[in-house]
Amino acid sequence: MPETPEQSATGRFDTVLIANRGEIALRIQRACRELGLKTVAICSEADRQAPYGKTADRFLCIGPSTAAKSYLNQDAILLAARLAGAGAIHPGYGFLSENAAFADAVEKAGLIFIGPTTSSIATMGDKISAKRAMMAAGVPCVPGPDTALPDDPATIERTALEIGYPVIIKAAGGGGGRGMRVVPKADLLHEATALTREEARKAFGSPSLYMEKFLEHPRHIEIQVICDDHGNAVWLGHRDCSMQRRHQKVVEEAPAPGIAPNIIQPVGLACVEACLQIGYRGVGTFEFLYEDGAFYFIEMNTRLQVEHPVTEMTSGVDIVQAQIKAAQGHVLDLTQSDVTCKGHSFECRINAEDPESFLPSAGVVTHLALPAGPGIRVDTHIHAGYKVSPYYDSLIAKLIVHAPTRAEAMTRMREALAGTEVEGISTNIPFLRALFEDGAFAHGETDIHYLEQWLKLRRAA
Amino acid sequence: MPETPEQSATGRFDTVLIANRGEIALRIQRACRELGLKTVAICSEADRQAPYGKTADRFLCIGPSTAAKSYLNQDAILLAARLAGAGAIHPGYGFLSENAAFADAVEKAGLIFIGPTTSSIATMGDKISAKRAMMAAGVPCVPGPDTALPDDPATIERTALEIGYPVIIKAAGGGGGRGMRVVPKADLLHEATALTREEARKAFGSPSLYMEKFLEHPRHIEIQVICDDHGNAVWLGHRDCSMQRRHQKVVEEAPAPGIAPNIIQPVGLACVEACLQIGYRGVGTFEFLYEDGAFYFIEMNTRLQVEHPVTEMTSGVDIVQAQIKAAQGHVLDLTQSDVTCKGHSFECRINAEDPESFLPSAGVVTHLALPAGPGIRVDTHIHAGYKVSPYYDSLIAKLIVHAPTRAEAMTRMREALAGTEVEGISTNIPFLRALFEDGAFAHGETDIHYLEQWLKLRRAA
Repeated sequence: MPETPEQSATGRFDTVLIANRGEIALRIQRACRELGLKTVAICSEADRQAPYGKTADRFLCIGPSTAAKSYLNQDAILLAARLAGAGAIHPGYGFLSENAAFADAVEKAGLIFIGPTTSSIATMGDKISAKRAMMAAGVPCVPGPDTALPDDPATIERTALEIGYPVIIKAAGGGGGRGMRVVPKADLLHEATALTREEARKAFGSPSLYMEKFLEHPRHIEIQVICDDHGNAVWLGHRDCSMQRRHQKVVEEAPAPGIAPNIIQPVGLACVEACLQIGYRGVGTFEFLYEDGAFYFIEMNTRLQVEHPVTEMTSGVDIVQAQIKAAQGHVLDLTQSDVTCKGHSFECRINAEDPESFLPSAGVVTHLALPAGPGIRVDTHIHAGYKVSPYYDSLIAKLIVHAPTRAEAMTRMREALAGTEVEGISTNIPFLRALFEDGAFAHGETDIHYLEQWLKLRRAA
Repeated sequence: MPETPEQSATGRFDTVLIANRGEIALRIQRACRELGLKTVAICSEADRQAPYGKTADRFLCIGPSTAAKSYLNQDAILLAARLAGAGAIHPGYGFLSENAAFADAVEKAGLIFIGPTTSSIATMGDKISAKRAMMAAGVPCVPGPDTALPDDPATIERTALEIGYPVIIKAAGGGGGRGMRVVPKADLLHEATALTREEARKAFGSPSLYMEKFLEHPRHIEIQVICDDHGNAVWLGHRDCSMQRRHQKVVEEAPAPGIAPNIIQPVGLACVEACLQIGYRGVGTFEFLYEDGAFYFIEMNTRLQVEHPVTEMTSGVDIVQAQIKAAQGHVLDLTQSDVTCKGHSFECRINAEDPESFLPSAGVVTHLALPAGPGIRVDTHIHAGYKVSPYYDSLIAKLIVHAPTRAEAMTRMREALAGTEVEGISTNIPFLRALFEDGAFAHGETDIHYLEQWLKLRRAA
């Protein structure tokens, strides 16, 4: 039997265990403390000296450096929550943040999972059921059936013809760029289907596939939503995250350049409608491909995202606080008409990696200088003397700027990058500096392949 | 003959020499670069390793560590400007920023002084002429004549009786808390006058005195203005800077708590009117005492102020960029109706000083961790490994927060202070942390004596 978690007079909990590390552990901790909540930090052995531990009310080491034995160790996290008397668990992003089984285990332990319900995570985690839910709410989807692809070759052929080549075959349980295959023409269809099915079985434990229209040069646009338990939901504007390398976002911005309010408005409202229909709680992101003026839903992230600050900068809403308040059971304290996005924001992910090979770079930060001033925000967990561990994600800081216009925000980012100095480890700062000098990017003329092509051209030069 | 300074196609100059050091040198440099201007940094020998030098287009050492021989050395600064081809000089705050003779020498050398005209500085630098200009524009002033106090004992007595005791006698050329004396009753009047006149002669080179009503428990409220050369001026809201120790501001906030818009509105508009009447250019601050619902003008600061960020956070206006654009001759790009102040902002001045004795603390910063996140801004020039010099002002960082309400901003500042770690030198952070736990401050019940009294009580406890 789990012990009874502490209950707050003003909500469902007064102590939050943060099941994450790095900058997001600090970000969540700060939001909790500002809301008057106590915090429990956890760490692996590699993170024993992490600054986020020092400022938490409790700090527990829950396992060895390998993530599987610490930050992904559900039993150890639940035990730590019970020991520290936490009433809720915030999963951050990555790690267990979209794991429906973990969310379920948290709730079964009598604790609050700071995120959507288990059923929302499960619905949106399966691409087919997600697509069905989105179509029902009027969210625009990629052409293709909202059912799994049958095994029958004739039906597969007919489906591909109906959609029109090129098509893409995807594992229903896939994500992050894995378990998908583009089919440019009919004679490659059956081989591609067989290979993807085999991959889906091995990688995601299910042979379930689906087929969609393949978009050649789309942009990646996403809509941020925030919902409560009482039937209220708003969207907080949109972001462009087309700047990706190997399906990893590198630079994000809000709003997406060149998309008029009357184009995005119905998409945002459809996302809100979808949230209400599936009884979504907390924060979430609807990801879309955007090509030739049309939006195509690809997936929903049922968690806080790395790039949430660009929306915080434009909307003025503290997304992490809003998420925690929703989990407390509070009524959303803003309506759609309260949401007014102002100016333009960029985020650069500063990674500890070689700027040419992109291989992770671990070691001690010997010197650190960060930019500051109006419209500049740096979310980071490192400091001079910090030891960057090889065990985890290479993100060491998020450099975020805000300015009245996109051009001014780009200038501000250029200056902010010029004023960022990290010594002792390699970082992608030189690469980011070069990217912010690129003319096409400055004109907003990019798509999800742009960054890879730009890198190729740069290497060739 | 000075060489012809570089001229910009889009303004009066394209290269700015920044005649200052520390955080404000970096802040101004960033604003210049964002506006596409080249920058020239200067330093004393003590600041040869200063980070602001590395990011400037030119970096010149202009003299020994003593400020009088470097940052106050007008000839060396003008020579550096000529050598580097600067078309303008930004004086920052402190040092030469309110020195009319320096502004004049800059203009005579054919360069632009980024600040008001020499005559504005001179008018507002003399307390009597300033008061006269303010009364003419309808700005509320402290009761007392707008003329210098004569030598005649009978007139002095009559003036004091007309104003009503207690009165204060001030040197017309004084400032910063020096050259003033409170007279509680008639029998101390003549001795006080004689002593202050002697002090004024010695400290400020002029025996000119004036007499005013002495306010016992006023708050320090100030109005930020920005003006161009074309007859346009706006005010950007007000600040409360009552939290002072020995006339040095320690914590500033915007807006001032408990002052209704209809109370401050006419004062702000009168300040704008005064700017238009004296032909003021650039940014400036009207300082007031506020007691029992009434405002009393005390002086105008004809320069950028340390606390400008709290107004930037609430108004969204980049005050340093606006100041530079005004000096370029550009037309002010906002009208009064564009100015909408949102939320609440606090600034803490983090000083390298002993938190008990307030003696300056020099040395090497061995560890530095700064807070970050939504609504947090840290303007600083230091980093781990930075050597804090004993030669100058002890300000090492400005911690600025912004949140929707004053209570939320206080909470955010408490958390930001908790997340600020400076090791290797002593700082006033422990004192600031304690201050932000104070109940009366939390209720906005303070005046300009509050902090000194609070410190006394704290020492006694």
